[in-house]
Amino acid sequence: MRTINIGLVGLGTVGGGVARLIMNHHDDYVKNYGIDLHLKKCCSLYQSDADRLGLSADQFTTDWHDVVSDPDIDIVIELIGGTHPAMDIFEESFKSGKHVVSANKALLGRNTEHLARLAAENGVSFRCEAAAAGGIPVVHALEHELNGNEILTIAGIMNGTTNYILSRMKHEGSDFAEVLADAQALGYAEADPSADVDGFDAASKIAILGSMGFRTRITTDDVYMQGIRDISAADIEVAEELGCTIKLLAIARKTDTGVDVRVHPTMIPNGHPLASVDGAMNAVYVVGDAVGETMFYGAGAGSFPTASAVVGDVFALAEPISQGQKPLPEAEPFSVNRPIRTIDNLHTRYYIRLTVEDQLGTLAASTRILTDNNISISNIRQLEGTGDGTCTLVFVTHSALEADLKKAVEALAADDSIREVASVIRVEDIDKWTEGVFAN
Amino acid sequence: MRTINIGLVGLGTVGGGVARLIMNHHDDYVKNYGIDLHLKKCCSLYQSDADRLGLSADQFTTDWHDVVSDPDIDIVIELIGGTHPAMDIFEESFKSGKHVVSANKALLGRNTEHLARLAAENGVSFRCEAAAAGGIPVVHALEHELNGNEILTIAGIMNGTTNYILSRMKHEGSDFAEVLADAQALGYAEADPSADVDGFDAASKIAILGSMGFRTRITTDDVYMQGIRDISAADIEVAEELGCTIKLLAIARKTDTGVDVRVHPTMIPNGHPLASVDGAMNAVYVVGDAVGETMFYGAGAGSFPTASAVVGDVFALAEPISQGQKPLPEAEPFSVNRPIRTIDNLHTRYYIRLTVEDQLGTLAASTRILTDNNISISNIRQLEGTGDGTCTLVFVTHSALEADLKKAVEALAADDSIREVASVIRVEDIDKWTEGVFAN
Repeated sequence: MRTINIGLVGLGTVGGGVARLIMNHHDDYVKNYGIDLHLKKCCSLYQSDADRLGLSADQFTTDWHDVVSDPDIDIVIELIGGTHPAMDIFEESFKSGKHVVSANKALLGRNTEHLARLAAENGVSFRCEAAAAGGIPVVHALEHELNGNEILTIAGIMNGTTNYILSRMKHEGSDFAEVLADAQALGYAEADPSADVDGFDAASKIAILGSMGFRTRITTDDVYMQGIRDISAADIEVAEELGCTIKLLAIARKTDTGVDVRVHPTMIPNGHPLASVDGAMNAVYVVGDAVGETMFYGAGAGSFPTASAVVGDVFALAEPISQGQKPLPEAEPFSVNRPIRTIDNLHTRYYIRLTVEDQLGTLAASTRILTDNNISISNIRQLEGTGDGTCTLVFVTHSALEADLKKAVEALAADDSIREVASVIRVEDIDKWTEGVFAN
Repeated sequence: MRTINIGLVGLGTVGGGVARLIMNHHDDYVKNYGIDLHLKKCCSLYQSDADRLGLSADQFTTDWHDVVSDPDIDIVIELIGGTHPAMDIFEESFKSGKHVVSANKALLGRNTEHLARLAAENGVSFRCEAAAAGGIPVVHALEHELNGNEILTIAGIMNGTTNYILSRMKHEGSDFAEVLADAQALGYAEADPSADVDGFDAASKIAILGSMGFRTRITTDDVYMQGIRDISAADIEVAEELGCTIKLLAIARKTDTGVDVRVHPTMIPNGHPLASVDGAMNAVYVVGDAVGETMFYGAGAGSFPTASAVVGDVFALAEPISQGQKPLPEAEPFSVNRPIRTIDNLHTRYYIRLTVEDQLGTLAASTRILTDNNISISNIRQLEGTGDGTCTLVFVTHSALEADLKKAVEALAADDSIREVASVIRVEDIDKWTEGVFAN
């Protein structure tokens, strides 16, 4: 049995989990799969990481060059995140004939094309199961097991922090700021929560999964992005009355005129499998024309769940290497060139909550504004006035064009009888998600 | 690009779907993945199948020997089901150096060991993603992506017919016989429903998934099996009051003294992701020590969903063949030898519904019988009497030994104050499912 030498760069939460997993299960891997994984060299800026993990002096370095230049190393695992020096670690590893496994969504969300080309030029592979939806093995499924399908829709809860916040807002009836503060105190949200709550993290992930699913180039910058800061307890309450749950979804969908790629709060019916994904858990719903609806559920973050995905990728490379074969190159990543549609071209349904003067004619005025902008109304609710001379009007529209909706919202905001457009939330037209599935 | 020649045996629901999928998407597979799949020879007993699919005379035969003896064929897809001649098709294919893809749960639930050995002897591979949970790519995940983990629990809704029946019973408050008759009329259940409703189908699938997850030999005959015929509308109603849903689960779980493998109706809390899997859909919940809880959801049957899994397996073989490599042999399937525990050794919680004489002392009598048999009670409900001199008592126990429970039920049945032990349903102790998951 050939030993597979691993170079591990980054010994933080995920890197430490990977090191511990490989050390804990070393003998099982040998016995069950004939795979002998050896942590040849691990890199961190902190000697304390090496001490905590019980790494020998030989196994540890503070300079990543020692890892990528070690001729015995087969696979480099990059777990430092960010762009620099992660990009250099990838490039140097490829040039010295090493395969790379990474969880770096920031890097891969923008640079998959460059990295795939460089890997192919050097006859090596890279894998990134852990970069999207942590431990959930959806990347491999999109790259391989579902290849018989044309993928139609990918829609996921890909950020645990925002799902945790929205779940608590729903269960407790609390407002965003309150739950965020508590989530920060409990360590579920960062001190600077922007990457999570404003949608950046989910945008990187849907760029990666969308590129794979639709085999077209999607980068993080292509993704329309709106976070959850404006979701209020009132919206969640009305959603509940409408039989819906509000989730921060990352969605990529193929249409006849291009791919929609977007991250935003979304109302989905309670009966949809994504609606019951609670707390910090992640789930990725994938529709293929043959398989129909599928969903992959699990932890999207955390030391060991992410390590599970990293080690799964290591296995995918180590299995052929152990048998004296080269890992197969991945299929050309961007074999199809699909345009990315802007959000203005989206057709979906909308929830609009207005605070209006509690007087005759207001309902007629707002209805007319919507109609004048080609927005057809599916559902109207007028909530009890609050005694300050205003009341709340809620509209749910039929499917409408986002560009029209924007104009309507501007006109509503400008109308004298309307105090405030309190919120606008997209109501996902889930029937569209399965359009194109073959009839059995 | 090397053409991959496919031999397809069986052109029924699944075989027809596979043929249509490969023909529909042929050009996409070439363009996206560089995989050129050619249906070289298809076999069915009926010429009408060939006509319906538009197969040429050259492409069609009624004799499977023509497929396995064709020297140009790389991969044989066996989709006729049953043991004979499926076993011969596997054996002849292996001996003539062909890889095999199959959805045959009946065959693989009992003969994986023999077939794996024969494939290895002949240097070929076989794959069976479609044999368990149809289109859901959980087999590959258990064989590869989750290899970094020690698998702790596999629990799934693996039979669409019974899930459809239980879902309708729940939503409509109807009894089993009534919903079954309607499901048969609608084509959701077979005229002879036994394979589904008595648990045989799910037993084959958990034997296959359990073998893979625990890397030990489990055959269909090792699986304890109890179907859903005895579930009544009353049980479903009481379950709902207890915050639970009744599902037919197929469960394999590692314990310190062996593996539990069982199929039976199970009460699970409504908050568990399996509880909201509705209608004919399937889902497989897998716990690994690193990844924690995961769930794979999708269609468990149907022409195209199953074809998606079959074609995914074809890709797994065609990718290396296209690049001039031999598909990697699978890891030794039964590298661990774990004993299978009998159901008598199960520790779980139980729901017991009794019809008792509506008189003083009955509650005390039944409580004493339980206590005398080491069954400790967690919850007691007495339902309103029905006017015929009886009333209903419901007990939910703490975790107890199945052998003790059986004795208690015998004693209850023999007691004069108890008219009937109306039902006994296992209440799954879901905390046990995640015992052994690493703390992050």
